[in-house]
Amino acid sequence: MAPIDTVLAKIDSNQSGALDRLFDLLRIPSVSTDPAFKQDCARAAQWLVDELIRIGFTASVRPTEGHPMVVAHAKAQRSDAPHVLFYGHYDVQPPDPLDLWETEPFAPRLVDTPTGKQIVARGASDDKGQLLLFVEACRAFLETGGLPCHVTLLFEGEEECGSSSLPAFLAANKSELSADIALVCDTNMWDRDTPAITTMLRGLVYEEIVVRAATRDLHSGMFGGPAANPIRILGKIIAGLHDDSGRVTLPGFYDGVDELPDDVAKQWRALPFEGRAFLGEVGLSKPAGETDRSVLEQIWSRPTCEPNGIVGGYTGEGAKTVLPAEARSKISFRLVGRQNPEKIVQAFHAYVRAQIPADCRVEFISHGASPAIQLPFTSEALTRARRALHQEWDREAALVGSGGSIPIVGQFKHELGLDALMVGFALENDRIHSPNEKYELSSFQRGARSWARILNALASPQ
Amino acid sequence: MAPIDTVLAKIDSNQSGALDRLFDLLRIPSVSTDPAFKQDCARAAQWLVDELIRIGFTASVRPTEGHPMVVAHAKAQRSDAPHVLFYGHYDVQPPDPLDLWETEPFAPRLVDTPTGKQIVARGASDDKGQLLLFVEACRAFLETGGLPCHVTLLFEGEEECGSSSLPAFLAANKSELSADIALVCDTNMWDRDTPAITTMLRGLVYEEIVVRAATRDLHSGMFGGPAANPIRILGKIIAGLHDDSGRVTLPGFYDGVDELPDDVAKQWRALPFEGRAFLGEVGLSKPAGETDRSVLEQIWSRPTCEPNGIVGGYTGEGAKTVLPAEARSKISFRLVGRQNPEKIVQAFHAYVRAQIPADCRVEFISHGASPAIQLPFTSEALTRARRALHQEWDREAALVGSGGSIPIVGQFKHELGLDALMVGFALENDRIHSPNEKYELSSFQRGARSWARILNALASPQ
Repeated sequence: MAPIDTVLAKIDSNQSGALDRLFDLLRIPSVSTDPAFKQDCARAAQWLVDELIRIGFTASVRPTEGHPMVVAHAKAQRSDAPHVLFYGHYDVQPPDPLDLWETEPFAPRLVDTPTGKQIVARGASDDKGQLLLFVEACRAFLETGGLPCHVTLLFEGEEECGSSSLPAFLAANKSELSADIALVCDTNMWDRDTPAITTMLRGLVYEEIVVRAATRDLHSGMFGGPAANPIRILGKIIAGLHDDSGRVTLPGFYDGVDELPDDVAKQWRALPFEGRAFLGEVGLSKPAGETDRSVLEQIWSRPTCEPNGIVGGYTGEGAKTVLPAEARSKISFRLVGRQNPEKIVQAFHAYVRAQIPADCRVEFISHGASPAIQLPFTSEALTRARRALHQEWDREAALVGSGGSIPIVGQFKHELGLDALMVGFALENDRIHSPNEKYELSSFQRGARSWARILNALASPQ
Repeated sequence: MAPIDTVLAKIDSNQSGALDRLFDLLRIPSVSTDPAFKQDCARAAQWLVDELIRIGFTASVRPTEGHPMVVAHAKAQRSDAPHVLFYGHYDVQPPDPLDLWETEPFAPRLVDTPTGKQIVARGASDDKGQLLLFVEACRAFLETGGLPCHVTLLFEGEEECGSSSLPAFLAANKSELSADIALVCDTNMWDRDTPAITTMLRGLVYEEIVVRAATRDLHSGMFGGPAANPIRILGKIIAGLHDDSGRVTLPGFYDGVDELPDDVAKQWRALPFEGRAFLGEVGLSKPAGETDRSVLEQIWSRPTCEPNGIVGGYTGEGAKTVLPAEARSKISFRLVGRQNPEKIVQAFHAYVRAQIPADCRVEFISHGASPAIQLPFTSEALTRARRALHQEWDREAALVGSGGSIPIVGQFKHELGLDALMVGFALENDRIHSPNEKYELSSFQRGARSWARILNALASPQ
């Protein structure tokens, strides 16, 4: 295997060709949610397969009930090398609203800006740019002697429309997709100069409750007082879910919620992040969560409970003196660490039932329960990847959390038993899903080098 | 003036003619809400005027922007007699759904039932039967020597569609409509054998609040925790409006709420009323109001606070992980006694403002504030009317409250400065506003006699 510097030099010399290849892929309008673009999705999958075969992978288009998967394999030079499963997606969001694009969304171009060049096109950042970086890293290894790890690639075509074929595909191809670790590229850098590894994704329990009282809507004059009011019952349920310090009151809710290791806590505190500015962008200024936690903690490493919707009684113009027969609310929980979704659902149901008067009823509708994802801070892969990123960017990689979920990561864990190393080179302001989506040329250039360093680091002797 | 027995005998001998007259009026489909029946409303008003002139009133149809009023006057024999203003309405609800009527809604008929004969037609109970009783009582006086009281009649044609012309009409005709007391007939008996006088109507304060937090809807993964959630704020506001004993927590809320006089409280306790059965009819069993008050008190003589509507966030099918930018609720208060609506609005606003975080906002929309109506239990007219009803029915008249409002009663108080004596002979099961509306023939027969006795009693020397 060539020394890493040779590989990095190859990536640099391949740059212009790499950009041409990315532009070719960006020109294919692989909008997965709109059936009008079905052939384009198939075309993007085939383009990837052709490209991967050209550089030495065995690769094939794999039909599903929706858009096809692309699966490719390449062996490492050493048979005892670690095996990585890299995931990305070739489908993109619709480009609407078209009139807000400065140029055609599927006619990629390089734009000069005061902070450097940007690649502008739908999919430049999400996810064609991010996934091709990894392919370019593999190309450089294969062109200079071989891969340091066994590599399996899985590229999906339905990420932007629900990934409905994915769970069954993972289950059906479990052994073919087996690996030591998953690499997921759908994430951001901390800022344009600081790489990041996402080690925590919050889980989600999403419940809906329907509180029913009288058999029909009642006149609030005739019945107001003695008749139970479902809106009041819901109000009490919602108000009782938090105490004055912002903690969730369900018994056992914090079981499995760990404190951050000191070094991580220290690193988070050192991150240039202003809670007030973060909230200021949406017109708020006062952190509303647990009073003894920073805004970053509240989003990344603390569980939450929030009603997402509520409706009951008369909601039109003016006044109607009604006591409704029912009212409903959707309430979700973000989970962290080792919180057990099923136990939280049970505790929530028990809490709600205890608030329902004897002559009223409650119906529960479940909209999902998935645990948090946490790559252990002690993971050897994490340590190696962090070191590799440090070498490339000359800055410590931030270990960050994410308030939301990346479903594929849960599925890799659940279906394939794989932890995921989440590294991406997108920036917060890449305008993904919006007009004039862009990807920084610097991300594209140094992202491929970063992946080469990570693959090299994963395969190095201890 | 003839002795009351002569007048009562005249009412009895007029019975068959009285029923014919009621049937004539019931045949006119005076549906006020539907423009197709505009001419029929005018016809009903003219029918009343013709009838009133025939028996000795001066009467006229009085145009309004909507359906006309009927105003009529007749003097008492003694010029120093008290003056009553009697109110009723000649318009009716639409008969829909027509297929649920056993016979034509505007083809009145007498139906034999195990408990006696019933008059079945739209408007039989609400309000043509109730208002004609009073006219028949006046007729009997006028046919036997003269009225004991000066009588002004006001019949409205828009009660079932909002009474929009009424306030201006009262204001514009204040002196013509002046009297010592108003008589309002739009109410029920306690049961088919027990007359009732309604002495309390609850007032109403109806507020809407809109709580606004972030400038846009937020992703609950990205912002859940630090970002304020308007649904949680509303939940806290609603939950905090009552304490554990069901009392409203607003400071000063119970100012002006009097305890019932002992004799009224005793009479209420003696009424054959089962709170459990009342709630049972709508599928409930456990009184939800103030824990130390009976169901009747909760409805009639105690103030309440109830949310009538709430909406915020995602309310469609399935799940959406949104933190809404705003949520709103309509919240109303039923008032009793001398509670001051303006003070309650102020207390409510102050309470709500105190729950709004510094970086959130609240908007208040007012949908009305009217005080409770209470005929003093010490009123001489009440005492006399109660005695008169006792004589006719051989049972003490129940002094009852009503949880709802009768807007005209507040307007009489506000525009004309009149207390109202509310006496009616409808029954709870008269199916007003529903198919097969009926009025008991016994109500029709003894109702006219009751009004004759009341007029007589109001005019008697102390």
